Amino acid sequence: MRINIRKAKREDCSRMMELIRELAEYEKAPEEVTVDFNHFVNSGFGDSPVWWAFVAELETEKNDIQIVGFALYYIRYSTWKGQRLYLEDILVTKEMRGKGIGKMLFEKLLEVSKSEKLAGISWQVLDWNEPAIHFYKKFPQVKFDNGWINVSID
Amino acid sequence: MRINIRKAKREDCSRMMELIRELAEYEKAPEEVTVDFNHFVNSGFGDSPVWWAFVAELETEKNDIQIVGFALYYIRYSTWKGQRLYLEDILVTKEMRGKGIGKMLFEKLLEVSKSEKLAGISWQVLDWNEPAIHFYKKFPQVKFDNGWINVSID
Repeated sequence: MRINIRKAKREDCSRMMELIRELAEYEKAPEEVTVDFNHFVNSGFGDSPVWWAFVAELETEKNDIQIVGFALYYIRYSTWKGQRLYLEDILVTKEMRGKGIGKMLFEKLLEVSKSEKLAGISWQVLDWNEPAIHFYKKFPQVKFDNGWINVSID
Repeated sequence: MRINIRKAKREDCSRMMELIRELAEYEKAPEEVTVDFNHFVNSGFGDSPVWWAFVAELETEKNDIQIVGFALYYIRYSTWKGQRLYLEDILVTKEMRGKGIGKMLFEKLLEVSKSEKLAGISWQVLDWNEPAIHFYKKFPQVKFDNGWINVSID
């Protein structure tokens, strides 16, 4: 088993969308995924991209290659902190969890944050998602702030 | 008293930063504002802007003009919803609250969301900020979702 982390390419989008739907099932909200596939591809690989991603590729003994996880982010602007990397999604398929792949993806994001001189990384986690919270707690500088409510108008 | 809502200009930045610091005081976290002023200006009015804003101008009887509020936003990418307007800050000075200025700013954002064909608006509110929650509840389609924790690494 070999894992390779690389920048996402346009051809990865359909597999990524498959994984996004899996994550939404896990987060108990599959009906909330209403994004259009072409819009997703264009937003990442069109003339003015608004998201970027890394994928984790698994190379099996038979030399099959499959994407088993990814981390998708964009740049947000905080009036308190300046430009930050906002981690929209990080996920690893169920069978491949616990092998350090999430950590490899996360470390790539930390590298981007440094090389692009961003003022840090921020994201959200569901309050009942214990495995994810446990994973994030492994990073020494991580801060949790649970006084906020998400609000939206569709 | 006349209120005029218009797009923010580079010259508005120092007054906006003043109001951002006032808001941080109100949110009980003044020490969290570590953004550099030039970086703030360049992020909004440099070669590749990452934020946009509307300001509310008050014209007094003596023809003085003062900015008494603003709404600052950027475009985020949701893997569930596509491109959305993310409202980073909306604020009105203490003395000018309760006069409908927040609503005027908010309606501008709804216009942008429609004209730019975005999949809605999202933002966050502190769970103890009753006046803000009360204000947002006036919009019929608004949804509150309080199962999320903010996480960050500076």
